[in-house]
Amino acid sequence: MRKPAAEADAPQKAAGNQPKTARGEATRKAILTAAERVIGEKGYNDASIGHITSEAGVAQGTFYIYFTTKEQVFSELVLEMGRLVRHTIAEATQGIGNRLEAEKAGLRAFLEFVQAHPDLYRIVQEALFVDPAAYEEYYKTFAAGYRSGLVAAEAAGQISKGDTETRAWALMGIARALGEQLVVFKSEKPISELVASAYDLIANGIKP
Amino acid sequence: MRKPAAEADAPQKAAGNQPKTARGEATRKAILTAAERVIGEKGYNDASIGHITSEAGVAQGTFYIYFTTKEQVFSELVLEMGRLVRHTIAEATQGIGNRLEAEKAGLRAFLEFVQAHPDLYRIVQEALFVDPAAYEEYYKTFAAGYRSGLVAAEAAGQISKGDTETRAWALMGIARALGEQLVVFKSEKPISELVASAYDLIANGIKP
Repeated sequence: MRKPAAEADAPQKAAGNQPKTARGEATRKAILTAAERVIGEKGYNDASIGHITSEAGVAQGTFYIYFTTKEQVFSELVLEMGRLVRHTIAEATQGIGNRLEAEKAGLRAFLEFVQAHPDLYRIVQEALFVDPAAYEEYYKTFAAGYRSGLVAAEAAGQISKGDTETRAWALMGIARALGEQLVVFKSEKPISELVASAYDLIANGIKP
Repeated sequence: MRKPAAEADAPQKAAGNQPKTARGEATRKAILTAAERVIGEKGYNDASIGHITSEAGVAQGTFYIYFTTKEQVFSELVLEMGRLVRHTIAEATQGIGNRLEAEKAGLRAFLEFVQAHPDLYRIVQEALFVDPAAYEEYYKTFAAGYRSGLVAAEAAGQISKGDTETRAWALMGIARALGEQLVVFKSEKPISELVASAYDLIANGIKP
């Protein structure tokens, strides 16, 4: 196999294929971003490593500096998207002292993230078949964080007392359903309206 | 190809492959039930018509009396499961005059259905890749019915006024998330607790 030119100035391979240099990290991210687009569009089975490196604009050999197989880049993509979603929501809700307000800001940030990453749904949903462990980790990590936020808010009297575990799953279910409206079912409803309606339900319920 | 024995007493093929006789209808249902189990377990790609007919206990040729291809039996299975879910919820909520009580009964019926059909999630979720139109029809038909129930309840003053479309998607999202807890993430929480906690959220919200 021809040794791709890009490999010459590639970073040293670190433990777990985590690049050591900023340049290496940028290349790794470029490959993940390309994988997001290619696997989102073609689906896991039809996407190849060649498609991904071509989309990323790197030589095929460069892929193997950071990842071992298509399976592995897919799993890493699912976990990376989970980290990105959680980071985005954490940033958007940072400094908001009231949990109900944080729910609203977090939901808005999530829906904006989904709109900017329209392939998120297909990728995470395909993980149930390609890598069930990554699928489970994606949702369970999210739920654990969500739940501890609700526990703290309950203790601070910012929300009513309740079953925080089931509430976390239910609130995530609402966010997931509204995000699916946007990018899978192509709803034209603006994010601000989705957030306002969902917030009203989450805060007040539907009892007359 | 050997003409399978079962074909001899098979029903006449009707328009759209809808069997005309009770016996034909029973065979068609048996094939769909087998497809549910086989595709749920193996996934769409690895499931074959031979696996399905063998699971159903019918000759392979019998399959073609009712269905044309694996794609078609899969699409029909997704739509049939949608009809079954909606029928189950309609039966469970029939005669309940109050919408909030109907929400509770409907959610319980849905979760019991999910527990009895543990492959429902994998099948519907795989439809996003195998037959996106069936995936969309599954959720949109469900949502349209849900929404008209909420519109009637709102008019009758049984629930507060609100954005019935977004509410329908959000409430479906809650049900979907709790069902996933049961059959995908194997939560041990009893259905009665899931329903009670979700009902509290749906009726009252989380405002203190």
